[in-house]
Amino acid sequence: MLENFKSHLQQKLPFLLESKVIIAISGGIDSVVLAHLCKKLNLDFSLAHCNFNLRDEESDADEVFVLDLAEDLDVEVFVQNFDTEAYAKDFKRSIQMAARELRYNWFAELAEQLKFDYILTAHHADDNLETFLINFTRGTGLNGLTGIPMKNENIVRPLLPFSRQEIEAYAKENQIKWREDSSNSSRKYLRNKLRHEVVPILKDINPQLLDSFQNTLDHLNDTADIVAESVDSVANEAIVSLDEDDVFFKVSEFKNLKNPKAYLFELLNEFGFTEWNDVVNLLDAQSGKQVFSSTHRLVKHRDYLILSEKKSKTTKSVTLSEAEVINSKVKIPLGILFFDEADAVKEKSNTTIYVDKDKLNFPLELRIWKEGDVFHPLGMNGKKKVSKYLKDEKLSLIEKEKTWVLTSNNDIVWIVGKRADERFKVTNKTEQILKVELANP
Amino acid sequence: MLENFKSHLQQKLPFLLESKVIIAISGGIDSVVLAHLCKKLNLDFSLAHCNFNLRDEESDADEVFVLDLAEDLDVEVFVQNFDTEAYAKDFKRSIQMAARELRYNWFAELAEQLKFDYILTAHHADDNLETFLINFTRGTGLNGLTGIPMKNENIVRPLLPFSRQEIEAYAKENQIKWREDSSNSSRKYLRNKLRHEVVPILKDINPQLLDSFQNTLDHLNDTADIVAESVDSVANEAIVSLDEDDVFFKVSEFKNLKNPKAYLFELLNEFGFTEWNDVVNLLDAQSGKQVFSSTHRLVKHRDYLILSEKKSKTTKSVTLSEAEVINSKVKIPLGILFFDEADAVKEKSNTTIYVDKDKLNFPLELRIWKEGDVFHPLGMNGKKKVSKYLKDEKLSLIEKEKTWVLTSNNDIVWIVGKRADERFKVTNKTEQILKVELANP
Repeated sequence: MLENFKSHLQQKLPFLLESKVIIAISGGIDSVVLAHLCKKLNLDFSLAHCNFNLRDEESDADEVFVLDLAEDLDVEVFVQNFDTEAYAKDFKRSIQMAARELRYNWFAELAEQLKFDYILTAHHADDNLETFLINFTRGTGLNGLTGIPMKNENIVRPLLPFSRQEIEAYAKENQIKWREDSSNSSRKYLRNKLRHEVVPILKDINPQLLDSFQNTLDHLNDTADIVAESVDSVANEAIVSLDEDDVFFKVSEFKNLKNPKAYLFELLNEFGFTEWNDVVNLLDAQSGKQVFSSTHRLVKHRDYLILSEKKSKTTKSVTLSEAEVINSKVKIPLGILFFDEADAVKEKSNTTIYVDKDKLNFPLELRIWKEGDVFHPLGMNGKKKVSKYLKDEKLSLIEKEKTWVLTSNNDIVWIVGKRADERFKVTNKTEQILKVELANP
Repeated sequence: MLENFKSHLQQKLPFLLESKVIIAISGGIDSVVLAHLCKKLNLDFSLAHCNFNLRDEESDADEVFVLDLAEDLDVEVFVQNFDTEAYAKDFKRSIQMAARELRYNWFAELAEQLKFDYILTAHHADDNLETFLINFTRGTGLNGLTGIPMKNENIVRPLLPFSRQEIEAYAKENQIKWREDSSNSSRKYLRNKLRHEVVPILKDINPQLLDSFQNTLDHLNDTADIVAESVDSVANEAIVSLDEDDVFFKVSEFKNLKNPKAYLFELLNEFGFTEWNDVVNLLDAQSGKQVFSSTHRLVKHRDYLILSEKKSKTTKSVTLSEAEVINSKVKIPLGILFFDEADAVKEKSNTTIYVDKDKLNFPLELRIWKEGDVFHPLGMNGKKKVSKYLKDEKLSLIEKEKTWVLTSNNDIVWIVGKRADERFKVTNKTEQILKVELANP
């Protein structure tokens, strides 16, 4: 196996031969064999071990084992202890996800601080096959069937073409010791079931299963490249504006496609949508129709679909006392509001207003507009419902919901960034002018 | 199940309710249940049974069973006997392939002659899953993972969403009888192994496996639509000429793509190529480089890749006696040659020549040119190697190999369709003129 590993590195991962790398080491057979192979090839590497403290003494014994291994191999070793359960609880992750995040975050940190070029993990061909089968069994799309990438940014998996059998044989031949992982998570249970009960039958049917599987993965990855290139090109045509909050998709671009659903799925899948027929139906729906995922929503607005995040109520209103209102700035989702005294009115605009300070009742309030709000549009006689104003301005549902107002004793002073109120305007009787300016963050 | 089947037809296959259909019936549980269901729903159907004569008395007993079933259901039945083994031998097919071709050819014939709208087959969800796993185990690409289509031209598979379990339960509840298929082909062995040993474990891991699988298939079929649309659009740009024999692909179009191999695979896979790296390397290869599949070849020629069939030597030469040469036509792969007397020379062209008949030595021969051939190009002094002439004409390797010559006593009279020979031209001493014209078929 050493020779095959060497020529694999030379042909597919030659950059590893001239890099400084970290090997992510659990103490299990795969990562230990990887460390031994790298030692044999004189790679410039250190070990990094995560103690997730999930299996009491066993976790600690693993740590000791890794420290001993580092000494045997005469390489540097880093060990980090994590309170995985606390992290999982705090961030609402599964234990599996928590361990994964902690591990990769720490590796990334190590790599950056200590100038390592790559992080090596010991995933092998059977892992890859098992992952494929797990994803398939649960239901998936092309992306769940393209396998673990050999290189993904600075994470490299040099054992990926090798089978578990080859790794075990190498460990045996070279009398390499390792630690068995006794954990029995549901994920591992699943993996073991596939490993011991399904894969042997498939290998019985096709003794070259791992080779065939590699070919399948190669084809599927090529296909995924076609899909990505194609979806990118549709996105380039369809996405007309993309600000921090919203993405606008031109409906007409999807109507030109033979299967709009396929592209909508590729573009929106990552935002957690599941009701794809509803998403497709939005293309022909009336303005205002929307579809939700757990984190996002998609709204039809005239010739557009608008994707935005469901806001986690950072829409709390803000009150400002008279003392606070001078020379202050207030952050709201729309941007930053600057309050200031002014000598005279100049450069009035949608985003800058001047009001007669003596007409204000403090504290002022900044809040999202609500049904029933009425104001006196600047320059007009009489009043108007805010809802009517927003409709006449042809704002989308999302834009409407993001509309803030500045009020004084619940009278609207300004529809922020849009229209000032007639009642508070500066006149020739005005003694103190307050300037309010909205700047985007 | 009857209710589910009914609403499935109403929602997904409503056209079947108003069509005249054939049910392909083996006598096995799936097709027999399909026939019973169609009877219950009053569909306008007939049965069609193929007796492949592969299992002696058993095949005949199946036939009798189907005839009885038709009587019970009070529907029309067609039975056809095939000598499957002879067909397989004659056409070099596996027994499986032979049976498949015979079956579908006969169904197509029946449908056309007797004005049936659709042919129904009884494939179900478990068949679909097993096919996926068979393809996966052997190694495949996206197309091997998108499942059996519910409707493919006039073949419709109305049981596709239903599981084997549902079908068995329906047969039991309704005391439906069927014939067990005792055949044990390797294909069936494989299927049984997956059915009895692999699928139960996957269903144990995910009890909703068939539903998840259907979602996976839906996603993969959408993805396949993206790929097809994208590959079509590349093909439209890249294919510059497409005659009966050759397809010319513009190399530059592939160079614009991020992953040319992926597109070449999609475009050329059906022609049996396997060495995809060699195919990709052709893009940068010298003119004349080629890659072969068992049936086709791909040649680099200047800015093009030219795909053509490897000809099954229909390149046998033809000889023509003096008697045969007047008023005759001769078919060669290039087209049809018309030989005729003429009073005078008119409309000379690449495809029409006039020669002095008295200068010819019979029999004439029509054959592919060969190395060493020399001719006297019309209008030139002296002679020229045919190989040099073809090179100077900048013909591709494929065009060169398709070049035919008409010879007299092994002297070239005409490089067919390209250039006549000076020695045989009509002069003022000519008494008999022979006109030869090449017409494309």
